Amino acid sequence: MAELARLSLNLATTRVKWGALDAIEGCARAGVRWLAPWRDQLAAAGLENCVRAIRDAGLGVSSLCRGGMFPAPDRAGREAAIEDNRRAVDEAAALGARALVLVAGGLPAGSKDLAGARAMVADGIAALLPYARAGGVALALEPLHPMYAADRACINTLAQALDLCEALGPGLGVAVDVYHVWWDPDLDAGIARAGRDRLAGFHVSDWLVPTRDLLLDRGMMGDGVIELARIREKMDAAGYDGPIEVEIFSAENWWQRPPDEVVAVVKERFETCV
Amino acid sequence: MAELARLSLNLATTRVKWGALDAIEGCARAGVRWLAPWRDQLAAAGLENCVRAIRDAGLGVSSLCRGGMFPAPDRAGREAAIEDNRRAVDEAAALGARALVLVAGGLPAGSKDLAGARAMVADGIAALLPYARAGGVALALEPLHPMYAADRACINTLAQALDLCEALGPGLGVAVDVYHVWWDPDLDAGIARAGRDRLAGFHVSDWLVPTRDLLLDRGMMGDGVIELARIREKMDAAGYDGPIEVEIFSAENWWQRPPDEVVAVVKERFETCV
Repeated sequence: MAELARLSLNLATTRVKWGALDAIEGCARAGVRWLAPWRDQLAAAGLENCVRAIRDAGLGVSSLCRGGMFPAPDRAGREAAIEDNRRAVDEAAALGARALVLVAGGLPAGSKDLAGARAMVADGIAALLPYARAGGVALALEPLHPMYAADRACINTLAQALDLCEALGPGLGVAVDVYHVWWDPDLDAGIARAGRDRLAGFHVSDWLVPTRDLLLDRGMMGDGVIELARIREKMDAAGYDGPIEVEIFSAENWWQRPPDEVVAVVKERFETCV
Repeated sequence: MAELARLSLNLATTRVKWGALDAIEGCARAGVRWLAPWRDQLAAAGLENCVRAIRDAGLGVSSLCRGGMFPAPDRAGREAAIEDNRRAVDEAAALGARALVLVAGGLPAGSKDLAGARAMVADGIAALLPYARAGGVALALEPLHPMYAADRACINTLAQALDLCEALGPGLGVAVDVYHVWWDPDLDAGIARAGRDRLAGFHVSDWLVPTRDLLLDRGMMGDGVIELARIREKMDAAGYDGPIEVEIFSAENWWQRPPDEVVAVVKERFETCV
C-alpha cells in the first residue's frame, strides 16, 4: 500500500465546507503533508495569504487546479484563455506547486468539430509552454473521461495526452486520474510509456456502481470498482514517486459531511486501498 | 446525406409505447423498411408472430438486440450466458436478421478485475461463434462507451473490439454506434481498419450537452454534438452499405411522445443530419 506521506488532499474533496485557509489548517491538523488547491479557492482567500499559510504549516503543493480550457469560438477567446493560463502559471510558481494541471476544454460553443477543438488544445499548450518553462512550472495535462469530451475536455485518453507531450517537448507531462482512465485497455501501456519524466501527477478516487451523476458522484477509494493498488503499482513501477492526490467530487455524499471526518476517512482508505 | 432506404428503427427508440407488433405496423405505415427488435419485445409478442408480421410487411431486420453479457462470477453463470446466447442466435436466424448484436457485459458482481472480465468476454464469444457460424448468423460486437465499463460492457473501444475480431476469426464483426465511439481519437482509423467485412452494424443517435443521465438521455440526431454525416461518410468509405439503425434511449423526452410522431422526426432527421 502507498505510504501516508504521499497523500495529498485535492481541495475539490472538501470544497463545499472548507475554503483554502480552512483546508490548509485541516491538512496540518490531520498530518496530511500535501494539498492541491483550486484557483477559485485561492482567489477567494487571497493568494498571498494561502502561500504564507501553506509555508507556515510546512505543507507541499502537489498541483494547482487548474489551467487549460483552450478551445474558444474565435481567436480573441483563445488568446484570452492562453493569457489566463499564464496567470495560472504565475500562481503555481508562487505556490511552489509541483505542477499546474491542465484540463483541455471541450467543444467551443456551437461547434461539433472535435478534431478542431483538439487542435486548439495543442496550439494553446504550445503557446503556453515557453512561459511555463521560463517560470519553472511543470504542466500536467489530464486526460478526462470520454463522457466529458463535449463539454470539459477533448483529450480523453492517456495515449492522446502522451502524443501531445511528444509533439510539444519538455515541460509537459500527464496527470493520471484513475477516475478518468481506469477503463482504458491501454492504461498500463500508457503509464509505462509516460515513464518517470512525463508522470506529473496521480489522482485517486473510485468509480461507483451505479454512478448517479456524470460529474458529482465520484466515490471514496474502496467504495467502487477501480483496482487502485494495481494502478498505483504500475505508477510506482514507471518511476512515479510523487504525491498522490485524493480528488472526490461528491455532491450528495462526501461534500455534505464534516471535512475533518472526510479527511479521516481519506487517510484510512488511502492506507488500506491505495 | 444517407438514403432513407437505409433507415432502420431500433425498437429501443419506441419501447415504452410500442410493443414489437405495434412497431412493425408503425414502420410499415411510415415506409421505414428496416427494424431492429429487442429480445424481450419478441418474447412478449411471440417470436413466431413477429417473424410472420415482419415478413408480411416486407420489412428487413437489421439486427437482433441483443446477446452478450458473458462475464459471471462462476463457471455455471458463464455457461448459462453462452447457452442463452445460443437461443439468441436461433432467434436471429428465425428473423433473418443481418446480425446479432453483442453487448459484452461488465464486471461480475463483486469483482474489480476488468482484465478478467474482458477475458471472459473473449472466451464467451469464442464458445458461441461456431454455433453462430453454423446457424448463418453474423455476430456484431458493439463497443460501449467507457462510462458503461463497470456495469454493462467492458469492451469500450473499436480497437478493442477489432482486436477480438482478429483473434477469433470470421463470423464476428463490430457494430459501430456513434453514441459510444464518437469521442474516440482513433475512430476513423478503427472504421477503416474494420473494413467492409467487419462492419456488421451502424447505429446513430446524438450526444446531448448537457447529458443528464448516463443511460437514458440520448438525443435525436441533430440535437447534439456528434458529426453524424462525417462518421457516416467514413462508414461508407470503408464499404459499409447496410441499414443504419436509429437507437435512442430517452426516458424523459422521446419515450414520452407518440411513437408515430417520433418516427416522423427520425425520418426527417435521418435525411437532414445523417
